[in-house]
Amino acid sequence: MALVVQKFGGTSVASAERIREVADHVRRFRDRGNQVVLVISAMGKETDELLSLASAVSRTQPGRELDMLITAGERKACALMCMALHDLGVSADSFTGSQAGFITDTNHGNAKILKITPGRVQAALEANRVPVVAGSQGVSTEDDVTFLGRGGSDTTAVALAHTLGADACELYTDVTGVFTTDPRVCADARKLNTISFDELLEMTAVGCPKPAMRSVEVAQNYGVKLHIRSAFTWEQGTWVVKEEPSMEQPIIRSVTPDASEAKITVAGVADRPGVAASMFRRLADAGVNVDMIVQSASEHGITDISFTVPEDDVDTAAEITRSVADEIGATGVTANRDIARVSLVGAGMKSHPGVAATMFETLSNNQINIEMISTSPIRISCVVRQDCADTATQALHEAFGLSR
Amino acid sequence: MALVVQKFGGTSVASAERIREVADHVRRFRDRGNQVVLVISAMGKETDELLSLASAVSRTQPGRELDMLITAGERKACALMCMALHDLGVSADSFTGSQAGFITDTNHGNAKILKITPGRVQAALEANRVPVVAGSQGVSTEDDVTFLGRGGSDTTAVALAHTLGADACELYTDVTGVFTTDPRVCADARKLNTISFDELLEMTAVGCPKPAMRSVEVAQNYGVKLHIRSAFTWEQGTWVVKEEPSMEQPIIRSVTPDASEAKITVAGVADRPGVAASMFRRLADAGVNVDMIVQSASEHGITDISFTVPEDDVDTAAEITRSVADEIGATGVTANRDIARVSLVGAGMKSHPGVAATMFETLSNNQINIEMISTSPIRISCVVRQDCADTATQALHEAFGLSR
Repeated sequence: MALVVQKFGGTSVASAERIREVADHVRRFRDRGNQVVLVISAMGKETDELLSLASAVSRTQPGRELDMLITAGERKACALMCMALHDLGVSADSFTGSQAGFITDTNHGNAKILKITPGRVQAALEANRVPVVAGSQGVSTEDDVTFLGRGGSDTTAVALAHTLGADACELYTDVTGVFTTDPRVCADARKLNTISFDELLEMTAVGCPKPAMRSVEVAQNYGVKLHIRSAFTWEQGTWVVKEEPSMEQPIIRSVTPDASEAKITVAGVADRPGVAASMFRRLADAGVNVDMIVQSASEHGITDISFTVPEDDVDTAAEITRSVADEIGATGVTANRDIARVSLVGAGMKSHPGVAATMFETLSNNQINIEMISTSPIRISCVVRQDCADTATQALHEAFGLSR
Repeated sequence: MALVVQKFGGTSVASAERIREVADHVRRFRDRGNQVVLVISAMGKETDELLSLASAVSRTQPGRELDMLITAGERKACALMCMALHDLGVSADSFTGSQAGFITDTNHGNAKILKITPGRVQAALEANRVPVVAGSQGVSTEDDVTFLGRGGSDTTAVALAHTLGADACELYTDVTGVFTTDPRVCADARKLNTISFDELLEMTAVGCPKPAMRSVEVAQNYGVKLHIRSAFTWEQGTWVVKEEPSMEQPIIRSVTPDASEAKITVAGVADRPGVAASMFRRLADAGVNVDMIVQSASEHGITDISFTVPEDDVDTAAEITRSVADEIGATGVTANRDIARVSLVGAGMKSHPGVAATMFETLSNNQINIEMISTSPIRISCVVRQDCADTATQALHEAFGLSR
């Protein structure tokens, strides 16, 4: 008998029919002798709808009130899931973040879990009832309702799985697992049966289900076994495991295209200590999440710095960068939304120096210009023009033999 | 400086624009030197929408889960109201029923308030912030979320006004006050400046705003001054006062038509002790709220019993009544939805025996047949055919000079 935390949200619970289907899956899973704890996030696009309602009501949205608003979506979905389970003869109790014992800091909108006291969840399990926990929420040390942020339900599920000593944490989504690349771009993309935490963390997965990075980190730190799988086909998905892939597995695991970022370039920066620091400190203070940073080789004490930011933040980032550029005497700032990042990910590549060369050659053979390069021990990312991203992805998927 | 509890819900907060208008009203009220506590119920038809979602998901709706679901509507509206207030420079904090200190019994769906510990609400007031309390909810003695029932936000507001020692409790609605009759039926219906608690309790007000009876009873018991007024025109409405109307006020205060009930008649009932009791006990056990009950004079030990029930309950009530009728040997049960009740209400009528006679004559002069009669010291109700209700209302409004 296994104890499994199963997380459902978004499209998986977007309608009454979908909620009933999930409930039926839970019933069948229990009928096979297992115990289950559910973590539910808001139905369909409800979180977006609540946010746009907030924008319509007010230009001023205090974090405390935004959290009160958004968490209503999860509570609603939880209550409905319990009803659907009862209808199938499965006793179930909904728990808000607070009732499930999620104590957080007071950082509204992006609260961090401080501790979990899951007494009520455990009592429900012992009474052979299904605890249904509202995802991405808790109660702060000041007794206010807090939201863990977008994707926070994954973190709720993983943290709860660890606290309860569950055998696994299953994150259900609308695709069947993690693929060698985006199946919409490459018809021969292949589903991976396992992937390592490090590899998953390196993927900025488009077309793959991407659990919130925070939840993957928590799972890795606490050794929680993650299973990413479909709430539509119910087939086995991709297990995320602590171990490196075995010897037989290919060096490269996936090609992941990502068109969600924009690039900012600061030209003519004096190459002296503290210049880059002052710029990135100001960006961090404004909450801009800078990703790739590349500084070109310095010539005559002058260099260019390029970095990528989420497309939504590009205007803010450009404005800050321009004001810093004036102060530090840089010659110009350009922003470019028309980019995509294509990454090769694979734990095996660190001992294979030829990977980067093959990647660059493949892109070159397809007349694709590389605008930025960044690497980690298990990833190589190239920034290219957005309209080249599909060709790049297909060519690399082919070149590294990922469909086999 | 007055401290006033103001309650808004339904159409008053049905859209982003309406929420902003209410917030602006609150700002102006505070600018005149007053303190305010808001009680907010769900936006527009949200409670109905949540209930129909629940029906679509499951035939089984445990009370605990239904309460978790429905209370999400109030929390959402509260958070949005706080945002709108902040936007106008008014600091405000939302409080769930639990945070506002509403401790209830465990009777899900219709919980009763056991006590209120409004420490956080008071602290917000002292910090010159507007407490915005989610209506119709609390936390049970077993730490579960509870719903006080439909219309429970009125009770939340009145109970909070009493606990805080507020100067008044204002229930905002979509009409401008309590009228002498339904303005949609009589063009010359007149708004009353004051009305007594007893009179308001006797009105089954159609076309008048009818605060939940429970809240009026609480207000009466604790001497909370109620003001029923419009959230659209913001003009002075009707004050509900403890005192009897002054001598100058007319005997009859209003004519209130009500087409929301149906009539059940049990014919040929043996007129012996316990027969009626067994029938109404069974109806009560099924949760059917019986209103008027009339038993005809007994002839040869055989009588007819008629009673009214809310139209939604008529099928249940008829089924129960038929099964009891068989047991007690009654000759037949008929159910009739095609009825309306027209009531005269006025604290002055108890010392004026001619009122009933005038009422019956007026109906008779208009060829309207009376199917049932029931009276209280300050009310006379006649059940008539539904298609006669408007004529009856207009004739009585005229006959008792209520437009003057």
